[in-house]
Amino acid sequence: AEGGSSAQLAAKPAGSGATYQTLLVTTEDDITTIKLNRPAKKNAITPEMYEEIIAALEQATNDDSKFAVFTGAGDFYCSGNDLSNFTKIPEGGVQEMARQGGELLRRYVRAYIDFPKPLVAVVNGPAVGISVTVLGLFDLVYATERATFHTPFSQLGQSAEGCSSYTFPRIMGPSKASELLLFNKKLTATQACELGLITEVFPDSSFQSEVWTRLKAYARLPPQVSRTRRRQPARIQNRHQKGRPTRLKWPSEVVRAK
Amino acid sequence: AEGGSSAQLAAKPAGSGATYQTLLVTTEDDITTIKLNRPAKKNAITPEMYEEIIAALEQATNDDSKFAVFTGAGDFYCSGNDLSNFTKIPEGGVQEMARQGGELLRRYVRAYIDFPKPLVAVVNGPAVGISVTVLGLFDLVYATERATFHTPFSQLGQSAEGCSSYTFPRIMGPSKASELLLFNKKLTATQACELGLITEVFPDSSFQSEVWTRLKAYARLPPQVSRTRRRQPARIQNRHQKGRPTRLKWPSEVVRAK
Amino acid sequence: AEGGSSAQLAAKPAGSGATYQTLLVTTEDDITTIKLNRPAKKNAITPEMYEEIIAALEQATNDDSKFAVFTGAGDFYCSGNDLSNFTKIPEGGVQEMARQGGELLRRYVRAYIDFPKPLVAVVNGPAVGISVTVLGLFDLVYATERATFHTPFSQLGQSAEGCSSYTFPRIMGPSKASELLLFNKKLTATQACELGLITEVFPDSSFQSEVWTRLKAYARLPPQVSRTRRRQPARIQNRHQKGRPTRLKWPSEVVRAK
Repeated sequence: AEGGSSAQLAAKPAGSGATYQTLLVTTEDDITTIKLNRPAKKNAITPEMYEEIIAALEQATNDDSKFAVFTGAGDFYCSGNDLSNFTKIPEGGVQEMARQGGELLRRYVRAYIDFPKPLVAVVNGPAVGISVTVLGLFDLVYATERATFHTPFSQLGQSAEGCSSYTFPRIMGPSKASELLLFNKKLTATQACELGLITEVFPDSSFQSEVWTRLKAYARLPPQVSRTRRRQPARIQNRHQKGRPTRLKWPSEVVRAK
Repeated sequence: AEGGSSAQLAAKPAGSGATYQTLLVTTEDDITTIKLNRPAKKNAITPEMYEEIIAALEQATNDDSKFAVFTGAGDFYCSGNDLSNFTKIPEGGVQEMARQGGELLRRYVRAYIDFPKPLVAVVNGPAVGISVTVLGLFDLVYATERATFHTPFSQLGQSAEGCSSYTFPRIMGPSKASELLLFNKKLTATQACELGLITEVFPDSSFQSEVWTRLKAYARLPPQVSRTRRRQPARIQNRHQKGRPTRLKWPSEVVRAK
Repeated sequence: AEGGSSAQLAAKPAGSGATYQTLLVTTEDDITTIKLNRPAKKNAITPEMYEEIIAALEQATNDDSKFAVFTGAGDFYCSGNDLSNFTKIPEGGVQEMARQGGELLRRYVRAYIDFPKPLVAVVNGPAVGISVTVLGLFDLVYATERATFHTPFSQLGQSAEGCSSYTFPRIMGPSKASELLLFNKKLTATQACELGLITEVFPDSSFQSEVWTRLKAYARLPPQVSRTRRRQPARIQNRHQKGRPTRLKWPSEVVRAK
């Protein structure tokens, strides 16, 4: 009952000619689905996979789909950063590795922020780390009751990324956000729903069929859905703050313009 | 047991001399009540009614009331924009109609934003469209358990208005707001209360008596309630953002100043 | 089972040489605890106590603790402003009293905003007034089920302070915040938790042992927890708003710079 099941062949990213090694990207029923496809590694994200996700979001920006859906192959949604990323030290040493990692992360998060259509997560199992922190940038997040949400950054001496220190306090208040982002609290799907991080929780047995039925219905709405709305909050906010109407700016545009 | 029941005659808007055709506007117990009064049309809003609501808010700004209350006559709170508005094409055609409608809508929403006293909604039945989207600009929203909240804009190929793409994600988080504003989900009163859109839900049998008892008690508080507080958030925000203290500015002031 | 119970002697504030008269300030297990210590007055805050809290936050900024915890001695957390503050009229009369009070209040709230480490409240009983309004500036708020949260400002003809007119609508939405800040609604601990104002509620019988077990575990996390994270939201927000990356600025820095 999964979406795109009849067309799950590795697709070409727009304009690159390359096929995806770590994703299954399909477009069906006006929905582009980006499925993380390293189930043996619980869909942990490698540098190659970061690049492919950026390319897949670019593809979904330019195709005719109404919106894009992220999901995971197998029992996990995503286990976050592949920790083996930190053990391959490039020429230039740890400092160069940190510099390259930081640059890649900025481009990665920017791709989510700038994605112009509604962005949907179909969380088919546990989600960890950066796959959780970017959820504050999504428009809809559906989860199976089996899903959990965990950001154990401070245990690792790391910082929460994905704009979560900005989005999480605004979604759930600072006293809830801190316990997740600073103190490693793991949420059940029901708890994440009560905090407003996710849209709705479904029984695992009917999760795929219920969610995809709903998404296919949404994809039949008039095409405006995929255009102007995602951008309105930023535009209104800028008008308020700067004293004049302005075209849309997201943080990543600003970063590029510096 | 309704507020203002002993004085529900059509009143004169301040400074105009005209009486209201589509509203009942009364002031009693230091509360100005603006009752939408087209029950046969489920209180759908016509262009004339938009203008009268703007005038009624102006009247409530200048009278001695402590705050203003919106409610609906009959079983509905408000069914939103009267769709017959879209079928009367003026000289100038559809483009001119869109231009006039846009200008009226800006003035209408501006009247809510700039209203200087606490703004209360007594939602006596189903609420649809623009009567829902402006609720993020209210200070208190009381609803009967019979009320529902529905913003079916994308079904109609329209966009959500009333600052809702700004206020709703801040109130309930983007993953909840999108389902309402982009994908037409209808909320029960209890759901709307859990999401923070409304203040409290009451049994239908005691709704009017409980709400008006409370509002009359609030109206006996010291007069400061009706003055400075509604404006503080914007002032603090501006100080933070612009690096200097500043007098209050709301978006509509900014729009006027451009 | 209270934290710091073995070292609850009045400590010296950093750089002043004075001991605290109204607080017990202790550092143990990498946690600096600031205990309001006027239990006979339900820990009501006098001008001297405001000054001592500012000094204690300065001490906790500069010591080696990972974070700071506020709590109250006895059955109350804090009953707010000591109303006897308003009856001692200084030379210069009521106007001079208001000026001095306003200046002290600005320095007091600024000390919370600028505190660079995570800030935790262990709410051991009822909380009133300014002890509630500043909670929106905390990172974690744990409460006993006996706690209540009450901001009866408009009954007294006063305004809510502590940035609450900014933080509360962002935490719980304007329709919930107004009922507390404008209309004096008192919350139970469970209600405050559902609104996102506090992190978690505990049974009174196990409150101290459960909370301190958890806090001591948090204090064993890597030291990054006590540094960069609390500041990230403001930094990101400024980047977005001003079109360029900027060092962290909190409102109080801006106020100082004017």
